[in-house]
Amino acid sequence: MREPILLTPGPLTTSATVKQAMLRDWGSRDAAFIALNQRIRERLLALAQAADSHVCVPVQGSGTFAVEATIGTLVPGDGRLLVLVNGAYGRRMVRIAEVIGLAVTSLSWPEDETVDAQALNHALAADQAITHVAVVHCETTSGILNPLQDVADVCARHRRSLLIDAMSSFGALPIDAGQTPFAAVMASANKCLEGVPGVGFALIRREALEAAKNNAPSLSLDLYDQWQGLEANGQWRFTPPTHVLAAFDQALDEHAAEGGVAGRGARYRRNHQILVEGMSALGFAMLVPPPLQAPIIVTFLMPADPRFVFAEFYDRLREKGFAIYPGKLTVAASFRIGCIGRIGEAEIRAALAAIGETMREMGVASGAPALRGESERHE
Amino acid sequence: MREPILLTPGPLTTSATVKQAMLRDWGSRDAAFIALNQRIRERLLALAQAADSHVCVPVQGSGTFAVEATIGTLVPGDGRLLVLVNGAYGRRMVRIAEVIGLAVTSLSWPEDETVDAQALNHALAADQAITHVAVVHCETTSGILNPLQDVADVCARHRRSLLIDAMSSFGALPIDAGQTPFAAVMASANKCLEGVPGVGFALIRREALEAAKNNAPSLSLDLYDQWQGLEANGQWRFTPPTHVLAAFDQALDEHAAEGGVAGRGARYRRNHQILVEGMSALGFAMLVPPPLQAPIIVTFLMPADPRFVFAEFYDRLREKGFAIYPGKLTVAASFRIGCIGRIGEAEIRAALAAIGETMREMGVASGAPALRGESERHE
Repeated sequence: MREPILLTPGPLTTSATVKQAMLRDWGSRDAAFIALNQRIRERLLALAQAADSHVCVPVQGSGTFAVEATIGTLVPGDGRLLVLVNGAYGRRMVRIAEVIGLAVTSLSWPEDETVDAQALNHALAADQAITHVAVVHCETTSGILNPLQDVADVCARHRRSLLIDAMSSFGALPIDAGQTPFAAVMASANKCLEGVPGVGFALIRREALEAAKNNAPSLSLDLYDQWQGLEANGQWRFTPPTHVLAAFDQALDEHAAEGGVAGRGARYRRNHQILVEGMSALGFAMLVPPPLQAPIIVTFLMPADPRFVFAEFYDRLREKGFAIYPGKLTVAASFRIGCIGRIGEAEIRAALAAIGETMREMGVASGAPALRGESERHE
Repeated sequence: MREPILLTPGPLTTSATVKQAMLRDWGSRDAAFIALNQRIRERLLALAQAADSHVCVPVQGSGTFAVEATIGTLVPGDGRLLVLVNGAYGRRMVRIAEVIGLAVTSLSWPEDETVDAQALNHALAADQAITHVAVVHCETTSGILNPLQDVADVCARHRRSLLIDAMSSFGALPIDAGQTPFAAVMASANKCLEGVPGVGFALIRREALEAAKNNAPSLSLDLYDQWQGLEANGQWRFTPPTHVLAAFDQALDEHAAEGGVAGRGARYRRNHQILVEGMSALGFAMLVPPPLQAPIIVTFLMPADPRFVFAEFYDRLREKGFAIYPGKLTVAASFRIGCIGRIGEAEIRAALAAIGETMREMGVASGAPALRGESERHE
């Protein structure tokens, strides 16, 4: 079976040149490797206009490792974290805080609604013990885009520290440290930055990190220690994923060549528009109302036609060279198709053709969902 | 500057074919990727004859992540860990236990002596509260090989659980679960197995892991949860380093083709012998007495000649295409040269020629150290 086009939220399809950057071995203490890391860290800060106010701390592992490391490092043992939850990644931050023993509360919304800054405002006014607020920028669970600026403004007004899980938005949707006050933004190499998986990072306000010594309940995931090590001699404390970082460096070159956040975001928005129009023409309905939908990943409601069996649909598409993504919703049966990675109009149109062909093979006349409340509303 | 031969304890020089395995993207939920992971896990168990008694749990990150994950998952909150320390990696396990809040004690030896099973025997007899013992198989700090069988026998006699940091030995020096009782062996892809860095793993006795639910003070580093996820559907809980794992799969093919642990170990022993003979001929002296020295990495004492400046020596060797490793000793000034990775007699002889040439360039007549007690004894 040939290598598929990955229409997923990551790992995703990367360029040949990003992968080719992994064709050499690097000594982790070598000057050239130290310079490569410095370059990555500086460019990530620049993407959020954060070079003057924040520092970039990379960490081995998946995005969740970066999120756990940031929460564990920045929220002190006597702090209190409020998580805004409208999907699995918000829930995961609650779980992280529980497991590492932090005091945590949450405000929750349905997966097809954004979090609400006004409710946050009330919650912060009512509970002075809350020191940190965490929110997911684009909730990959549904593909919804949360109102980050409103959330940040409320946090700033109440002088609470904001932690932003920007895993599936960073590099494609703008986040400007000058406009949007945050203590930390967390993301990873293998989403909109189009690197390969194996490293995440956080952009952390310098004073917040300076105050975080000995907070972390982990050695591996202590971003204060990690930062101190990198500042001391440019080296990672523990073996870095050298090849993954070389690919990341190349991916950032290609991100800049595409026009940075604006250019990357524009391509994804085109992908998204073509995808949504094509799927609508096939009868499929989106979970998230269009104005709330990020151009990252789209959740489609499961068709009503009983001949549509998702596992078969997935396998037939996979045979045609396209990997889509199962749903993760609690509110409705669904599946997801990503718009990100090194793909463009040609790949999206080819995927739509393959979806149409697969429906014909399966005898499914339309992708229309059952006329239930949730699904009907957003058709 | 051309890509160097890495004479380091990892990341190290890998084969071209291992790196080429990273030239495709994998969907993390795809059947082929699930099969690849299953194959890796089964082969790692087989390398230690542990398939009937243990399970293999991989984890994202460096080797230290795997060590912290294993200690955090297996040692319960009311347990007590005794660490046998004769180098930086033993000390690191003590630090991990302290940071994650476990009760921990240690027994310590100088870096050029092995840990002593008889002392362990006394310690376990004297303290019934100790539930787990941790030891480093080959201490990369010095290159010394600890008496693993003796340590394991003592632990078994006292019915305490043994955790083995086999980071720099696994795959080249035999560890047989049938002969050497252990609760867990921890290692990583990028040492003697000659993969690229970014993933570690533990082989854990099945009953020990089954009893470890909710022990871990971390979500990302919870190996019970990680195992449950893999067992449920073959998928990782959080984004796996797909390219690193594809390289690891290829590296295990090449390990088997070389004759497994015996074949890999034989090449490293040849590398080691040629290195030690050549360095001795140049006047250098080893820290560790030859019978205690593992064929993994060798610590050489700093030469007495004042014209030998290590930073210059390192840079000149690096310009000639060889990366060596600084020392990490507390007992003596030193540097290290590794014998592992995709290198053989030709590379070691070329490195020796470059070292000789560099000494001539620097006007260093001999690598002989000052005639102090420790250095003289092992010349």
